[in-house]
Amino acid sequence: MNTVEELTVKKGSLYGLGIGPGDPELLTIKAHRILTSVPVIAYPTMESGKVLARAIVADFIRPEQIEVPMPLPFSVDRSSQPYYDIAAEKIAEHLAAGRDVAVLCEGDPMLYGSFMYIFNRLSDRFHTEVIPGISSTFASAAMLGAPLTYRNDVLSIMPATLEADILRDRLAVADAAIIIKLGRHFAKVKAVLEELGLFSRALYIERATMPNQTIKEIASVVAEEVPYWAIVMIPSQTNPQ
Amino acid sequence: MNTVEELTVKKGSLYGLGIGPGDPELLTIKAHRILTSVPVIAYPTMESGKVLARAIVADFIRPEQIEVPMPLPFSVDRSSQPYYDIAAEKIAEHLAAGRDVAVLCEGDPMLYGSFMYIFNRLSDRFHTEVIPGISSTFASAAMLGAPLTYRNDVLSIMPATLEADILRDRLAVADAAIIIKLGRHFAKVKAVLEELGLFSRALYIERATMPNQTIKEIASVVAEEVPYWAIVMIPSQTNPQ
Repeated sequence: MNTVEELTVKKGSLYGLGIGPGDPELLTIKAHRILTSVPVIAYPTMESGKVLARAIVADFIRPEQIEVPMPLPFSVDRSSQPYYDIAAEKIAEHLAAGRDVAVLCEGDPMLYGSFMYIFNRLSDRFHTEVIPGISSTFASAAMLGAPLTYRNDVLSIMPATLEADILRDRLAVADAAIIIKLGRHFAKVKAVLEELGLFSRALYIERATMPNQTIKEIASVVAEEVPYWAIVMIPSQTNPQ
Repeated sequence: MNTVEELTVKKGSLYGLGIGPGDPELLTIKAHRILTSVPVIAYPTMESGKVLARAIVADFIRPEQIEVPMPLPFSVDRSSQPYYDIAAEKIAEHLAAGRDVAVLCEGDPMLYGSFMYIFNRLSDRFHTEVIPGISSTFASAAMLGAPLTYRNDVLSIMPATLEADILRDRLAVADAAIIIKLGRHFAKVKAVLEELGLFSRALYIERATMPNQTIKEIASVVAEEVPYWAIVMIPSQTNPQ
């Protein structure tokens, strides 16, 4: 005889799936296994219609998998809280019905990732597993052929959205640095790097590992043309041989 | 009729292969493809006999692949230069003979990696490609279930080998931090964290993603038992909901 407990549906598991910086071959074997086996796949979509995360893994998604788009506001000035609330509830419905859900995360899920907001809303209620992914930060070092840090070096990763004086203070004490989310902040970053005497050491890359990846001499970069997915890197000078 | 040029052997390619933090499933699809297709695999070995990198991918290596161990000194006090010179020349012989060589790198190749010393010696002479890998830093955040950085946060990654005053200064200005290579430096790090009021926020993990991974309450960690492969993490407090 079934008890109520036995009749209760076993809840699904939530996976935060790091899918890497753009090259589908940079998915881990584990992320690929989970992606191709879960019944439900969720991913952020911008109001602009941009769906980068899904595009990275498009060839791995099967028609019978349920897709859950998570609309997010493009502007950071607008509160994203209601958007994440809605997305989390849509995901929770699938989990409560016993369906595993993989949330696609560009790069690594725990680093400036939209998944973290879903994690904070659902990990108490559902079994949650985070699968680390290749971050665009380190992928950029690989693509640039730039060893980043040796031995006692300190590496700092920071968004270009910071105020100029904070950028300057943080960069001044870093042995190596990666500045992400450049976009319209390039001119400010350039001025800070010049002030610190770091501009000649800086490397520049757009859309690392994507089909349209572009590496430029930083001195030739036109500020108005810098995309959001651009990174400036200051590799360590330590090189101990 | 063959010209001298045509008779010259085409040089092999050098691959710096990020193989991730320990779980073999955290290799990327790309690293797995290259690992299983190259004729020659090189990897660091410690004088102590420790061969972690090879152990991670042991199940993927085929008997017909040539293995090139690269002995390295365990102590950072001893100059590693002659060791890398010898390793680079062994690898160069295979490359010159037309054989592709994959150098195994725990974590990511460009972050505190022994491959960088090989890269600096050979990338001018041979076609070189670096395949990013999952760093133990971000893998630790995934295993700890700890979102690391939001929006305008600055993340700093630093080795526990730094002097206490440098650790203190760098940690004081980081929104989030990852302290690696703990080993015998745990007591020093603990004292600095306590001084900065960060100890209660700190998370502790040993051997992230390896079969013997251990997560402990940091207050219960015994300094004398902390392994080299331990990490302390200070996640961001920003959490903007």
